[in-house]
Amino acid sequence: MQEKKKHYVRPLNIKNGKIEMNYGAGGKASAQLISELFAKYFNNEYLMQGDDGAYLPAAEGHIVMATDSHVVSPIFFSGGDIGSLSVHGTVNDVSVCGAKPLYLSAGFILEEGFPLADLEKIVKSMAEEAKKAGVYIVTGDTKVVEKGKGDGIYINTTGVGVVPKGIHLSGANCKPGDVIAVSGDIGDHGIAIMSQRANLGFETEIQSDSASLNSMTEALVKEIPSLRCMRDPTRGGLGTTLNELATQSKVGMKIEEAKIPVKEQVTAACEFLGLDPLFVANEGKLIAICGPEDAEKMLEIMRANPLGKNAQIIGTCVEDENCFVQMETPFGGTRMVDWLSGEQLPRIC
Amino acid sequence: MQEKKKHYVRPLNIKNGKIEMNYGAGGKASAQLISELFAKYFNNEYLMQGDDGAYLPAAEGHIVMATDSHVVSPIFFSGGDIGSLSVHGTVNDVSVCGAKPLYLSAGFILEEGFPLADLEKIVKSMAEEAKKAGVYIVTGDTKVVEKGKGDGIYINTTGVGVVPKGIHLSGANCKPGDVIAVSGDIGDHGIAIMSQRANLGFETEIQSDSASLNSMTEALVKEIPSLRCMRDPTRGGLGTTLNELATQSKVGMKIEEAKIPVKEQVTAACEFLGLDPLFVANEGKLIAICGPEDAEKMLEIMRANPLGKNAQIIGTCVEDENCFVQMETPFGGTRMVDWLSGEQLPRIC
Repeated sequence: MQEKKKHYVRPLNIKNGKIEMNYGAGGKASAQLISELFAKYFNNEYLMQGDDGAYLPAAEGHIVMATDSHVVSPIFFSGGDIGSLSVHGTVNDVSVCGAKPLYLSAGFILEEGFPLADLEKIVKSMAEEAKKAGVYIVTGDTKVVEKGKGDGIYINTTGVGVVPKGIHLSGANCKPGDVIAVSGDIGDHGIAIMSQRANLGFETEIQSDSASLNSMTEALVKEIPSLRCMRDPTRGGLGTTLNELATQSKVGMKIEEAKIPVKEQVTAACEFLGLDPLFVANEGKLIAICGPEDAEKMLEIMRANPLGKNAQIIGTCVEDENCFVQMETPFGGTRMVDWLSGEQLPRIC
Repeated sequence: MQEKKKHYVRPLNIKNGKIEMNYGAGGKASAQLISELFAKYFNNEYLMQGDDGAYLPAAEGHIVMATDSHVVSPIFFSGGDIGSLSVHGTVNDVSVCGAKPLYLSAGFILEEGFPLADLEKIVKSMAEEAKKAGVYIVTGDTKVVEKGKGDGIYINTTGVGVVPKGIHLSGANCKPGDVIAVSGDIGDHGIAIMSQRANLGFETEIQSDSASLNSMTEALVKEIPSLRCMRDPTRGGLGTTLNELATQSKVGMKIEEAKIPVKEQVTAACEFLGLDPLFVANEGKLIAICGPEDAEKMLEIMRANPLGKNAQIIGTCVEDENCFVQMETPFGGTRMVDWLSGEQLPRIC
């Protein structure tokens, strides 16, 4: 029956077409964008219900909800694009809370004139990464703004996951003596983005580390009884995230610079750009903190995962009413690691 | 202990300050915006956990998830602002699926230079409307884009709700003979927005109808056993929404123009602007469809709610393999109600 209506409408010209204002008006053009692009790639039983929201199975256990709007520039970068990043970012925010991510929503703000071919690439890469992470994109929304009122495409993803019984991780759980691990080389995402920004005249072979961490987080939740908390050090980098956790848990932290894995090219690029890798964004790295009794096992589990083969124990939590994060340098000195205070890298995610 | 850190930072100048790029960088300035503005107004136990996602109680029953990005222009309008609208829009999308809305996420995309005083007004109105609707804003995210890459503020809200046992509404449930009701005057939101757009040189006293409909939807879900589906006719208006439902349910619809409530000033404004109120957006109106046996009761429940005092039965579902929506005019003629096809009102929500 729907066929009878459809023959009035020419299919979208994805190869050469551009986003027009009416794709966001909620009428025929909006419906066409949904059916010929979003539904084609995100295809799953929940999205296909076609109602204002998705009707989903009951979830057994506590729910976790996290949201992230993505405004990364450029939208295509070495190692990913705004689509894959928008899946990884939210999958990771749900996962580090100890939850198994289940569902994502996707809200698009498109600028008039944005090429449909680029949108298709982005939607495809969202669909692929959602599949890899085992999550469904169950509901969505598209708005169009006039040329000059956006920057091609912004994507909000919001995720819902479910926490296994008896698990409640929190950044407030750390105690003196706890052990801090990071799952691999830091700073890759930020440097990959910086290297592609036209105005930097600077190139490197670093790829973004953007990836979904849920296979690693789920293994840690299952196997590490003393797991206190996990975080993905995105904007603000490792340094800011450790400060957040220290403040939240009312502990200090002592980390060793020599133990923090950083690629040589990233160190070089940071020197060139006047950046500190401690404050450069990651999109596929995990900080995990557990009691000292499980430290070795935590490291083993991280290293057993392809995304964690360079995992390291980088320090411990200590008593400190100032909640300072301090770093021992390779030369025996000690340096304060403060929160990122200025704007280091705009629109990194 | 946190006090010791705080005295290094001057409080936000909300009265005269503006959004700077570093408010979105994930460091100190981001943390300050969260604690001095968002947390102050959205204050609830879930948001205050301070983790990457919110850890929420288990939900008994099927879950509904809905998302909406809000790009309305102007951001302050008669009867509301982008903040109140962003709560109503998503609360309603969750509610019309038959769910009790519980949680919202809030994702902000702010343009560099946006006044903090405006942001505070918007955040306040989100907080007020969330409280009225009985939902918590449990998690959030803020990104900042350069001047000229946004339009002040865009807000994504994503909502999660829980469906009472045994209820499964869907736009695919309508059958011939079912009765269609609308909860009140149509077109108010669209006309309120249009009247304030500077370039129209056109004024009216119409206020947006923007409101959370969950008290009405929850009563209908509870009291109307034959309730088939509900929708809020936003972008695309009543006409487009009825077409969506007809196509989804594979029925036709017959509606009576004389029964459709429209304010005189809205009719006049539509004539002046060359618009059809059937396609003008609403943000606080409900379409509900039930079996003929419950029609009177459905109308009673709607009218008992302050938001539904002008509710009307406007038509019925009929057998029609073309899924046409047809409208009987007051002069005895019949007119096809098609989907909105062009761009009628850009950035209406």
